[in-house]
This record gives sequence, structure tokens and C-alpha cells, in this order.
Amino acid sequence: MSGKVKTAISPTRSEDYPQWFQQIIKAADLAENSDVRGCMVIKPWGYGVWENIQSTLDGMFKETGHKNAYFPIFIPKSFFEKEAEHVDGFAKECAVVTHSRLEDDGKGGLKVGGELTEPLIVRPTSETIIGASFSRWVKSYRDLPLLINQWANVVRWEMRTRLFLRTTEFLWQEGHTVHSTEEEALEETYKMLDVYADFVENYLAIPVIKGEKTPGERFPGAVQTFCIEAMMQDMKALQCGTSHFLGQNFAKSSEIKFQSKEGREEYAWTTSWGVSTRLIGALIMAHSDDDGFVLPPRVAPAHIAIIPIHRKEEDRILVDNYVKELLQELKKITYFGRRLVVEYDDRDINGGEKNWQWIKKGVPIRLEIGPRDVQNDSLFMGRRDMTPRDKTSIKRSDFAEKVVEILDEIQNNIYAKAVAYKEENTVKIDEYDEFVKYFTPKNAEKPEIHGGFAYSHWCGCDECEEKIKEMKVTIRCIPLEIEFEDGVCIVCGKPSKNRVYFAKSY
Amino acid sequence: MSGKVKTAISPTRSEDYPQWFQQIIKAADLAENSDVRGCMVIKPWGYGVWENIQSTLDGMFKETGHKNAYFPIFIPKSFFEKEAEHVDGFAKECAVVTHSRLEDDGKGGLKVGGELTEPLIVRPTSETIIGASFSRWVKSYRDLPLLINQWANVVRWEMRTRLFLRTTEFLWQEGHTVHSTEEEALEETYKMLDVYADFVENYLAIPVIKGEKTPGERFPGAVQTFCIEAMMQDMKALQCGTSHFLGQNFAKSSEIKFQSKEGREEYAWTTSWGVSTRLIGALIMAHSDDDGFVLPPRVAPAHIAIIPIHRKEEDRILVDNYVKELLQELKKITYFGRRLVVEYDDRDINGGEKNWQWIKKGVPIRLEIGPRDVQNDSLFMGRRDMTPRDKTSIKRSDFAEKVVEILDEIQNNIYAKAVAYKEENTVKIDEYDEFVKYFTPKNAEKPEIHGGFAYSHWCGCDECEEKIKEMKVTIRCIPLEIEFEDGVCIVCGKPSKNRVYFAKSY
Repeated sequence: MSGKVKTAISPTRSEDYPQWFQQIIKAADLAENSDVRGCMVIKPWGYGVWENIQSTLDGMFKETGHKNAYFPIFIPKSFFEKEAEHVDGFAKECAVVTHSRLEDDGKGGLKVGGELTEPLIVRPTSETIIGASFSRWVKSYRDLPLLINQWANVVRWEMRTRLFLRTTEFLWQEGHTVHSTEEEALEETYKMLDVYADFVENYLAIPVIKGEKTPGERFPGAVQTFCIEAMMQDMKALQCGTSHFLGQNFAKSSEIKFQSKEGREEYAWTTSWGVSTRLIGALIMAHSDDDGFVLPPRVAPAHIAIIPIHRKEEDRILVDNYVKELLQELKKITYFGRRLVVEYDDRDINGGEKNWQWIKKGVPIRLEIGPRDVQNDSLFMGRRDMTPRDKTSIKRSDFAEKVVEILDEIQNNIYAKAVAYKEENTVKIDEYDEFVKYFTPKNAEKPEIHGGFAYSHWCGCDECEEKIKEMKVTIRCIPLEIEFEDGVCIVCGKPSKNRVYFAKSY
Repeated sequence: MSGKVKTAISPTRSEDYPQWFQQIIKAADLAENSDVRGCMVIKPWGYGVWENIQSTLDGMFKETGHKNAYFPIFIPKSFFEKEAEHVDGFAKECAVVTHSRLEDDGKGGLKVGGELTEPLIVRPTSETIIGASFSRWVKSYRDLPLLINQWANVVRWEMRTRLFLRTTEFLWQEGHTVHSTEEEALEETYKMLDVYADFVENYLAIPVIKGEKTPGERFPGAVQTFCIEAMMQDMKALQCGTSHFLGQNFAKSSEIKFQSKEGREEYAWTTSWGVSTRLIGALIMAHSDDDGFVLPPRVAPAHIAIIPIHRKEEDRILVDNYVKELLQELKKITYFGRRLVVEYDDRDINGGEKNWQWIKKGVPIRLEIGPRDVQNDSLFMGRRDMTPRDKTSIKRSDFAEKVVEILDEIQNNIYAKAVAYKEENTVKIDEYDEFVKYFTPKNAEKPEIHGGFAYSHWCGCDECEEKIKEMKVTIRCIPLEIEFEDGVCIVCGKPSKNRVYFAKSY
């Protein structure tokens, strides 16, 4: 027998990372595969995380002057064809609506009918359909900047799907803005990247690297693509959000023109930026442990779960009254703009089982309350940033006073752990052999175990980038916080002025 | 020349109601038709109304124990076929995805490719796809009730579309719940109808009649359908929300079974209920006047618009500073759970033009501020529940103190006006000839002008209902607040125990 502590999730991260990821989603009741190929069902606990992501980001977008609007889910094929690179990038994987009804097939079943004259694409992204509206909305410099965001579902016909990370349908927001100058559009592109970085670090508790994508990794049709990259617990990178400077490309294909102050007709400058339900995948892989999901309090659907412990009916009533008073008290407390959300789990099942369910769901604080706690006017508290066994008794009045502080501590601990992990697994590499060794799995049976981020020099040419790709390693980004330093390209040895981040990725 | 006051909207309601409706949407900048047949673009001001509808209803759903989740947009054809009545009701008008990519057609264009083995329907409603998940989620009585809501877009391939009222794609929420007993499911059906009525009356300021639909008007597959019906300013009825008791129909077609306390396997009882962006259509038609949209403060995207009035640069600075102080003050005030939203309109256009734009947009309060107001520490206020000329000067401190009261007054005035209109145009009719006359347009050139709601006896048979339909009049509902009274059917003269509401409708 091994001396290993038994964990709630099997396999563990080190045993089988991809399987562990699936098991976390199942154990935390976050989502499930549906009967529709590649489409997921987001269950209430997972959707609760999305609602918090949504409402926080939405507030940040509004503070930076953006307004929400809604555009059609269908894009006519002809719109799609307007921007050559764009259509190349998305045409190979899209859902196409060709008919408008089902009809009796004469055999007791149904067949498709009402063929459309022009097929419609279910939006994989909305630049072209939104561009058509913008070309009507923008007439003069007075109409600019136009700062719009859309919360929507999009569809990309992915061949290999994985819950939250890559699904045929996913939920996202897409910002689309129009500006009168190149400078202002670029400023917007950077500003929204900053909003994303701020959100992912301060709410999702995941450290990110802000950077620019190489030309080969740009959004189809963009002039420059910026991104935030985070490290998962298998040392792979996950792109968490992108912000695109589109130049005048889409303004030209969609005819977004305005009359300048000087009376000239000019093409506008546009941007687009988005994050999706993929962020939930990032959250799972950045923080969860072998006992289940670990939720940063600022995006947790519930901050606290209360588990009543009793055997006798009289105790049940005693505990129930005590909890109800406590609930009233906690309801009044606000943490990061949200009222505390407390789940009182009075289901008719065993207390130990409930406790483990809440650990697996990742709720930041668990309170077990039995008749003895009622007598002592106290609570028995477990914190998700500590081990399942680290539980402490705390006076009820102390808890109410300190709960905001405790939640902040949990948030900060989760973040600090992720920062340490990322730093431990990021190394400067200057020799090609070392680079290859870094990314080669040490154990053939566990191909998923390899090095993290390599911070190395790159000459800037496509050939060197392609050569690295053969190892399934990509340039994640050229960091915005660039450190100029003379060096030589890790591949070809030509001179380089700065390092870039290399990693395996999702 | 006529002595008529010039209005901002042309044609007026009495001149051409359907055209007036289109003009209000345009003048208030609420939405526009897109290049995709029947799909609308919801512009920021219109979407702002939807966001307020969403957040208020969402809070009400959560208070009644519901949680949000998200299910796939696509429904396999075979799922759709499971419930016979349901498929009959929706198959004739649905968007069908048959292919998964676009390919080079060899002529410089694109053709569809990657044919699917089973066509997918873009959801017109989600009973069948959600049912598939519920059949996995529900195992025991302990899992019940299951109270789920989804905010989503849906598609119905409508032949004749009209902005907000009937569009191919629209936004809505659909509640789906599962219960262990018939009684509990019925209770849920009524409860959510009450939530809708509460919301529409107290937020949208539209009085409604709660009632049950006749069998012919039921949701396809439902056992009973309940609705709320409101009167528009052309005296037509608009169904504002529905709540369906589905019995065990969908539980049987989707195999939603549970083990009862007694250990028996039983089919569950389900409900579904929804409201959509159609509510914005109701809002427009219930309250707007010949000068534009009229927004009840509780759902207005902005409560106040501030219009600075100045000619000289020194005045501009003076007014600007004054307004910025005022904004700080107003920001702290809360009205019905929302911080006051104030639009400071400092665009470089004429003040009079701005004033009319805000009237047309229906903002509840307009504040015009010029240098003289700054000197007097006052504001010049216009209210949307009064005529555009009714403006009053008010001390700045008084305004801040009374603004919540003023908003409530506006909300109440708008509601009272709608109640009076509905009451004036609802009549008890007991003679068939009178009934026919009531619904016959008085003027052949204006077929849209006819009677409002007729509150008349009906025997309960399909034939009489059908006969009335020939006049384009339908039974809107059998009111829940039923008044038993002996009478005779307006059509056939057979005995009847109660009256029902008849009207033309959208």
C-alpha cells in the first residue's frame, strides 16, 4: 500500500492530467456533453461562474464607455466573402443553414424543405454582420468613437472538442469599435487588453502575460493581434483573451466611412476584442487540485456553503433556527460589489457527503454547524485554499466581522500560488539543445509532462517559428513589457533584440 | 391650415398606427432591420431596455429559487420528432443546419460542404433539448424540484416579420422546471405567471389580464397554457408572456423519471414559461405618443439626460463644471435597485435638436442647463409624462432631494394612463350584432380602427371560437379572476357560466 493521501478526484493531476480535467468538471457539476456534436450544456454551477464573469466584465466595459447591442446570429454567405483573409480563416468550420422548414417525408418522418436562395452562416464571429450596421450608423466624425459590445453565442465547427476549452458552440462577448484615427483605434486595442488582464488577474486570480501575436497567429483580417496568455497546471499555455487592431481592413470591406472635421470622406479604423466561456476552462486548470475545483471568491457562484449536522429532530430544529439567523446576518455583507451568496444545504443526505460535494465544487468557505456549535455560538469553518482537514472553530460574531477579510485572504492565496507556479516554470533558455530537451517529455508514457514557458530569443522570421512548431511548441506572444537585450535567435542564431514566450498550448 | 400642434413623429397614431410604430423605433433609435431576412439589430438604446428587463426579471427568478443554465442552440431532428404536437407546431418555420463548411466552388466563390448525417434545427424553443439533460439530472425525488431558467436567442422562420413583435431571431428567457407532483407543477405555472404580471405592471407600467388560453391557442404539447394579455394604443391585444403546464407529456417523450419516496419509478411533471424582446414592442405601443417613445423610469436605460445650453466658450466651461458637480451628486442616488443613470449630452450639436432627440428617445427627465441656471443654482426640467412645452425651473438641491419622488410620479402617471385606456376600451357585450359592430372598422380606409376588448360570454366550444376568428377576433383568455355569472354564449346562445376576453391581436 502506498502512503498516499486519498483524494476526491481520480485520476490526479500527475496521474492523468487530461482525464483529471474531465473529472473536475463532472465532480464540480460544471457542464456536460450534450447529444449535439461538440455542444456543451453549462450546468447551474458552471453558469453561475459565467454570470459573475459577465457582470464584472460588463461593468468594466461600461466604465470605459462601451454600450451593449445585439446583432443577427446569421451571416449571409456573401458578407462572409467580403474579407478574403477572414473567410479563409472561418469558412472551413462553420454551421450552414440551408433550409427553412421540416416537411412530411411521406414515411412518417420529416425531411428538410424550403431551401434558401442564399445559405446563412451561424456567426463564428461578427465583424462582417456588425460592419454592415456600422456602415449605416457612422456618417460623420461626430458619430465617433463608436464603442459597442455584444454578449452572444457563436459557433465554430471544431473537429476535436473539449468542454469549455474548445466547443462547437460557446458563449462570449465581442467588442467592436470604430475610430476616426489609427492612433485612437490602437489605444482602444491596448486599453481593452488591459481590461482583460486586470480582470483575469484580479478576479480569476490567474497571472497573465500581455503580448502581441506573431503574424502567423493573427486573427484572420487583423493588422495586429494582442493577447493575454496564462499557464495551466500542466505547464501548457492557454490564451485567455484577444484584442485586435483591424486597421482599415474591415472598414474597407464593410464600407465604414465618415466625413472628417475637414469635410473629407475617410475610411474609419476599427478594433475587435473578445473573451469566452474558455475562461472557465482556464479557471479550472489554473487552480483546481486533486480534491476538486478551487474557486476564487470574486467569481464564485456562492461564497459560503452551510452544512447542518444533526441526528435528532430536536437538533435539526435548533440548528435550522441558528442557521436562519446567520443567513440574515450574512446577507447584509457585500464582497467586491456582490452581496454574499450563501448556500444553505439542508438536503436530506449525509453531512460528510455534502461536505465533500462542496469541496469538489470549490466553494471558498464551508461552515459545518451542529448542536454543539449552536451552544457555543460558534461555527466550524473549512477553507478551500487549505486542505480538507484544516478546519477551525470560530465565534459566530468573529466570523461575520472577518468574513470579507477571509475571502480576500483566500483570493490572494489562490493568486499567489498561481503566480509562484508560473514563475517556477518559466525559464530563460539560450541554447537550442536545452530548448528541445525542455519541451521533450521525460517519460514516454506521459507525453503531457514537459517544460513550461521558455523565454528565449527569436529573430522574427517565419521559418524559425515554423521549425519550432514541429515540436508542437508555439510562440505564445512577444511581451508588451519588452526588455531589450542583445541575443541570438534560439533556432537560427541570427541577432535578436528581445526575448519572446514559447510554450505548448491549448 | 389646421390648428393641429406639430408633433415629432409623423404619421401620428391616429393617422397611421402601424407606420407610427415603425417611426417611433427609428426616432428613438431602438432597432433596425438587418440584411438577414426577418432578423433585427437591437441598437444600444433598445438593448439598454432589454438589459433592464433582464436584470429585474433575473432577480425575480432567483428570488423564487431558479438558477440559470445554458443548453445547445442546435436540436437534432430526431429530438424534435419525439413530441408529436410539438413538432407539428414548430416544424413549419425553423432554420435547418445541414452543412458544416464552405468550400471553394472553383469559380472564385464558395459553396456549402460537409453535409451532416442528421440535420440540426436552430432552437425555436428548448423543451426537447433541455428534456434530454433533465432525464440525466433527475434520478430521485431528492433532485426535485429542478428549477432552471435560460437566457437565449431563438429562431422561428416567420413569414411576416415586424421589429420586436415578430422577428425570425429574438431574445428571450425560457424557464423549465421539473416536479414530483402535478399539484406542485401547477403551482409553479401560476407562480411564474404572477411574476410576469407583477413585472409587466410594476416595471413596464402596463396593466395586464391574467388568464388561460383556450385549447386551440395552447403551446404545442402543453396541457394548459396561461398568459398575460395587454392592450395596445390601437386597442389590439398583445400577449406579453406565457406559462405552460406541460403535465407529463414532455417527461414521457424525454424520459424524465424519478424514484419516489416510496421507491416507485414515476414520470415527472414539467412546466415551461417565457417572455421575449416582444416586451419592448409592448412598451412602445402601450405608452409612446406622437412625440416619440415614453419610457417608464424603472426600465429606462437612462433616467436623466442633461443638455448644456451655451454659446460662448466661457459659458461652456461654466456649465460644464456645474454639470460635473451635479453628476457626482446624482450618481449616489438609487432608484428601484439601480444607481441613477444620467446621460450628459455634450455633443457638438444644437441644444434644441438634442432636446427633441431625448424627447423622442423617451428619457423620463430632461435637464437643460445654461449659464443663468448656474447663476441661480437651478435646473430647467422637462418630464416625458408631460408635454414638451411643460418645463419648470427647480433648485438644484430640491431636484436631488426629490428626484426619486419625481421618477415615481412619472412611473405612476404612465401606468395610470395605460390603465385608464384599457378600462375605457373594455366593454361587456351581450348581443352578437353589437359584438360584430364593435369589431368592424368604422372607416374602410382605416381598417386598424375598431373596438378594444369585448368581455362576453362563451359556451366553451371550438365552433363558436372558430366563427369569431373569421372576424380576425380571438379569445385572448379566460380570466383567472373569474366572475361566475349566468349568461349565454355571444355566438350560439347556449348557456355560459362566465365571460372571456375577445379582441383583435398581434
